[in-house]
This record gives sequence, C-alpha cells and structure tokens, in this order.
Amino acid sequence: MQSWLTIPDHSDFTLQNLPFGIFSNNEDPQRRPGIAIGEYVLDLQALNHGGFFSGLDFDKKSLHKPTLNDFIAQGRPVWRALRERIIELLTTTDRTQQTGLETCLVPQSMATMHLPVAIGDYTDFYSSEEHATNVGKMFRDPANALLPNWKHLPVAYHGRASSICVSGTNFQRPKGQIRPNDAEPPIFTATKSLDFELEMAAIIGRSNALGEPVTTAEAEDHIFGFVLFNDWSARDVQRWEYVPLGPFLAKNFFSSMSPWIVTLDALEPFRVAGPVQDPAVLPYLEFAGDHHFDLPLEVALTPPGGGETIISRSNFKHMYWNIAQQIAHHTVNGCNLQVGDVLASGTISGPTEDSFGSMLELTWGGKNPMMLPDGTERKFILDGDTVTMRATAEKPGIRVGFGEVRNRVLPARD
Amino acid sequence: MQSWLTIPDHSDFTLQNLPFGIFSNNEDPQRRPGIAIGEYVLDLQALNHGGFFSGLDFDKKSLHKPTLNDFIAQGRPVWRALRERIIELLTTTDRTQQTGLETCLVPQSMATMHLPVAIGDYTDFYSSEEHATNVGKMFRDPANALLPNWKHLPVAYHGRASSICVSGTNFQRPKGQIRPNDAEPPIFTATKSLDFELEMAAIIGRSNALGEPVTTAEAEDHIFGFVLFNDWSARDVQRWEYVPLGPFLAKNFFSSMSPWIVTLDALEPFRVAGPVQDPAVLPYLEFAGDHHFDLPLEVALTPPGGGETIISRSNFKHMYWNIAQQIAHHTVNGCNLQVGDVLASGTISGPTEDSFGSMLELTWGGKNPMMLPDGTERKFILDGDTVTMRATAEKPGIRVGFGEVRNRVLPARD
Repeated sequence: MQSWLTIPDHSDFTLQNLPFGIFSNNEDPQRRPGIAIGEYVLDLQALNHGGFFSGLDFDKKSLHKPTLNDFIAQGRPVWRALRERIIELLTTTDRTQQTGLETCLVPQSMATMHLPVAIGDYTDFYSSEEHATNVGKMFRDPANALLPNWKHLPVAYHGRASSICVSGTNFQRPKGQIRPNDAEPPIFTATKSLDFELEMAAIIGRSNALGEPVTTAEAEDHIFGFVLFNDWSARDVQRWEYVPLGPFLAKNFFSSMSPWIVTLDALEPFRVAGPVQDPAVLPYLEFAGDHHFDLPLEVALTPPGGGETIISRSNFKHMYWNIAQQIAHHTVNGCNLQVGDVLASGTISGPTEDSFGSMLELTWGGKNPMMLPDGTERKFILDGDTVTMRATAEKPGIRVGFGEVRNRVLPARD
Repeated sequence: MQSWLTIPDHSDFTLQNLPFGIFSNNEDPQRRPGIAIGEYVLDLQALNHGGFFSGLDFDKKSLHKPTLNDFIAQGRPVWRALRERIIELLTTTDRTQQTGLETCLVPQSMATMHLPVAIGDYTDFYSSEEHATNVGKMFRDPANALLPNWKHLPVAYHGRASSICVSGTNFQRPKGQIRPNDAEPPIFTATKSLDFELEMAAIIGRSNALGEPVTTAEAEDHIFGFVLFNDWSARDVQRWEYVPLGPFLAKNFFSSMSPWIVTLDALEPFRVAGPVQDPAVLPYLEFAGDHHFDLPLEVALTPPGGGETIISRSNFKHMYWNIAQQIAHHTVNGCNLQVGDVLASGTISGPTEDSFGSMLELTWGGKNPMMLPDGTERKFILDGDTVTMRATAEKPGIRVGFGEVRNRVLPARD
C-alpha cells in the first residue's frame, strides 16, 4: 500500500505508524491533535472541518482540545476507526480529495509539539534485570545485587507528573543535598552526577474504577500507545535521600517524553516473547501471548559545539517484566489508572556494556569515563550537553519510529 | 464578634474558621464551592447570584466550578477579601440582608461533600521523629532506628493522586503480594495488617514555575490551607515491596481527606514553635518565625455494631520538620508545585504510647493488641471497622475545627 504523499525512505512516520500528538503552529497557535506522516503533521481539526471524518461515529469535539485525553477516552474502536480512515485518505487515488487533504498538512519543521496528554499520575517501573542488577551492585551489595522481591513482582514507585515536559525542553542542572562521604555532613550543591535513563512509557488509554483490578489478559486494552521517556536523575542526590522511601528530589526536577504516541496497533508486527521468568510468578502475574516488543533504542550525546556520538544501543525487548504484568500488578490492589497516566518501564539496559541505559552504568559510577570524539571525557552529563534518545522498529517493508526525546542541560541556577 | 446565625457551642465551624469545600445537594446536584458555618454550608454560588460579592474584584466564574482550583489560583488577596466579606455578611445587623443570606444556607445534613480540589500531584512526607523512629525499630534496626539522612532533610516520597477520596468513602480491603517469612515464597492474599496513618495535609494555593525554588520565607504564601488526611496502608504488602524504591501498592489503593480546607488565616492563632533541630540544618532549610500549629488530633475506632473508642490523641505540633521546610526542600531542585497539589505530613505520632498515629505503632506491630469495649481485640483494622480522625484547635473564645475524615473498611473483593 502506497501513499500519494511522498514519505522519505528513512522516515519514522510511515503509513504503518500514524502516531498521535498535540501541535500548534504560527498560523494557528492553538494546541490541537495531529498525526505524524512523513515530514508533515496531519491536522485532525482541519480534517474534521473539511468533512473527512463524516460517517465516523465519535465525539468530534475531542479533536478540538489541547490534549488527547478526551479523544483517547473514547476507546480502541474509535482509535482504530480513525486510523483506518486516515489510511484510506492517505492512499486515495482521488485527485480532488488529495488536493483537499494537502491543505490539512503542516510541515513538521513549522510545528511546535506539546505534551500529548494531561498526565494525572506517573509511575516508574524498574523492570530491566540488567539495570536493577547494575544499580544494586553499585548502590548496595555486589554479591546480592538483585533484591529478594525483584523476581516476584515488578517493582515500581510513583513519580512526579508536574515536571514531565515534552522533547525539546531544556532544563537547568538541579541543586540538592548530597553527602560526599559517610564521615562528613551533607552539603548543598549542584548535582555532580546528572544522568539520563533510557525508558519507554505506556500511555493509559482506558480507566479502571477504584477497586477494580485489571488482569494481564485485559491489560493491553488499557494502553493507548507508547512514547520514549527520559527519566533524568541526579545520582548523588539519589544515593543520599532514597533510603527508606525511594527516589524523590533526585528525579522530580525534570523528566521528558517524545511528542508522538505510537499506538499498539502500529507496534503489532514487532511483538516478541520475553525471557523465561524463573521463579514462576504468582497466578495474577501469569499471562498468555507475547507482550514484549523488538524495538531498537539508541542514546546520543552531543557536547556543546560538537557532533553527536551514539553512546548506547539497547532494545525494549530487554525487559524482564512486560507491560501486561506491570498493569496487572499496579491495579491488583484496586488502584485506579486513568486515561493519560504514564507508566514508564524503568531504565532499559541490555546484557552488554554498550547497551546500558544510563551513564551510571555506562561509566560504572564514573569509574570508567567515556571519551568523546572532541577529546573531552564524560563520567556524567555536563552543562551544555544534549541527550537524544531514538527508537525505530523495522522489518522488511515496515518501519515504525518514535522520533526522539531530546533535551539540553543548562547550567544550574545561581 | 457574634453572628446572627446560631452556631452551636461545640461547632468546629465557627466565625473564626470559615473553611472552604465543594458540595452538592438534592435540589442542586451540581458540585459547587461552599463555606462551612455552624450546621450549614454557605453556598458561594448562591451568594454570588444574590449579589453579595459586589465590589469584590475577582473572577466570579471560579465560584461556579466543581473544584476550588480556579478560585484558589487567584491568590491570597482574593481568599482574604472573600473571607472578610463573609465575616461582614455573617455579622450584619441588617435584617433584610440576613433574610437574603438565609436563602443561601444549606444544612450540612442535607449536603454531599466532594473532593475540594482536583489534585495534580500528591507528596507524602515522613516528618514526625517519633513515627520514623518507631517504624525504623520495627522494620529495620532497633539500634539505629532513625536513618542517617532523617535529621538533615525532610524525607518524602510521591504518592498516588487518583485514589485520594473524600471522607465518607468506604473501600474494600486491598489484596496484594506478601511474604509470610523469609524462608517461604510470597503469597497473594488480602492484607492481614490494614492500617491507618494520622496525617495533616497542606493544599497548595500558589504554583511555582519549573526551575524556580520556593524559599522557607516564601513557602506559606504557597499554601491555601490544611485538611485531615488518612494515608491508609497495608503493612504486610509494604514490608515486602518497599525496598529499594519505597511504598507503592501498600499505599496507593486508597487515601482519604476531610472535605473542608481550613485556611492558614484561620490557623494563625495556633502557631507555636517547633522542636530545636539538632544537627543544624543546611541554610536552605533555615527559617524564621513559628511554622508549627498547636492542633490536637484524635483517632476513633468504631467496630461493626459497636460504639466509638478514641484510640489515639496526638497533636500536629509533634512534627520535627515544618511545612515551610517541607516546601523549600520539595522545590529546591526546581520541582514545580501546582495549585491543588497535596503535601501530607506523614504520620503524626506523639512521644507517648497513646499518641501514636498508626495501629502499627499503637499495637507495636500486633505484639500488644488493643482491647475494645465490645470485648474484641485489634492488632490492625478489621472488616467493618470505621476509622474517624478529628482535629480541633481551641483557645479562650476561639475554636477552629476540621470536621473529620471517616472511612469504613469493606471485605476484600472475591
């Protein structure tokens, strides 16, 4: 199937993808829903005004909102019907229709992207065995890196929703309390170990009522799609504050996500089996089918004035716990997930040293600094550095990409 | 100063109090803002329609919303002006005006209360030294109960906003994963150690931008007021899951708050000094003035079919860290607090055994069960039990109360 619209060969935003986002442009500064296709944004509000959704039965006012929540809340049948209509329109051979559609295209280079959803709650899992093992070795006991509960339940904690920003937002290096060593009192300073965490995040697409668990079999019906997620972290702050209640200021200063939500329908061709889980999980965490995705990930570091270096290549398939298990666990006590909530995977580290998903792991806590082509050295992220994460799944004839999440670090506030 | 309206002697809702809430009633099921006075709710929407706010310069549409967020976002000068106008109206000697005002009163017994704010993020502190010490003794090492960071920073974690409900909501006993002992694998069961936590919570009244810390001197300008807060907990789930990332399913199944937000203006007469903090805190946590409140608290337990027993008497003044320090710490890394956010204090335990703020502490993990007048025994909270928390500050001629937060526990889902 071929579109009448030219889609560059290596575009993330193919006819099989069609991710949803929220954009604005100079001509119309109002935030509104769009779908990425090739080098364009398809303006869903304009399509609706143009009558291109006639015959589709859904609440069209949801296309005139500054977030996707109201559209998403209508459920998968509506997402699917809209997706199918968009495919029809992008493959129509009717020249008049094509001309009409062209007026609904905004070049991505002219569009400003915004957070696609209003986020109610944000949960961060810790579901990569390699990452949990690496952190356990460095922060706790190398001989018992993985804690006793880790293979019995998908460990997670609540994060801060208010400080999640869309890709492209820059932020100041955070300050905080750290303790340089156990013999001295803590000091207040800008973090000396600013780090990224390479993650994917699910966007909840269907709410469950308080008190009503979601089973692993039902879980994927509650997902609208996925984004790339960078869980920025201050390791020195984390190490001092996190016992016993978990990370707090080490994480809540800033997080970032890619602007385009790639739907589960688009990811369908890339399902793969996950690892064998041993010990066996409790019945509420058992599942059928494949809930992992073969999605190559990369992290690039760009120093000020320098070129980009790929510093990690990982894959979303390197997860121990899958999204169906995460949702079943999260709700098994009756906790209510709501449309627009973000469930991040936790850092996705692969089995090899070049596939680790954080500087903490890549430089082993700064012990093995990395050299950049410009001759500078990195233990952690420095002021002026830009970190870019990308994700693209490919098979013969199919390419589905996430675009990127990119942020530059500004010096700490005076 | 005396109101023309009869206010019962022991009412929490005096002329000095005037707390804000959201209510509805049978005649008008629309949620709208009100102020509690004696046995009535003063309907702010009706007052506005009646022209009683003429000459006050604020966005009156905010009184026609189902949450207080838009009203609160207008800032303390607006809250104060409205408070002063309400005092004028409730003390007017003009009989015609009194008659007009009477049409704006709804009996509290006929009103349904709702969550007063849309909560963006919820943070739970851990700021009572007695509570942290008691939990440390039971969960960790009795010899080193207080962890090294505890007196250097107000430890906190992010909680779940979506499952916070207003007083009066009942909930099912949650199920979860627990490990009966270290020699056996975990099991899935209804919690056997359901507990309350006696807390107060600040409602944020002014947002700070991402990247802009709030100092201790500015902190109270960011508080609209306080509510009672019950941070329901499943101790067996908590013990198994909480290392290393903190409590998750042990807490996020249900939390509850009292419906009336008591403003800082109403609490002004009850300020007291807090404890001497030793070791000295870092400069960003230093403060001037009194930021503790002498506010007696009580917890009552009512078994099914039985009478109420007061099982704990504590006081909000038993905090180590004060609200100004909590806000300064929370934002020192640039984290943005938003209007409607909830900052809970953590369990407020006093120095004596009858002032502990949770069953975990009152029965010392179940080792010292309490006997109720009906002859039954409690280690933790049983199905059918109702837990009620109350808070009332008093001085000669001044009484400011919070009403209550009350919930009944239903049996676990099948």
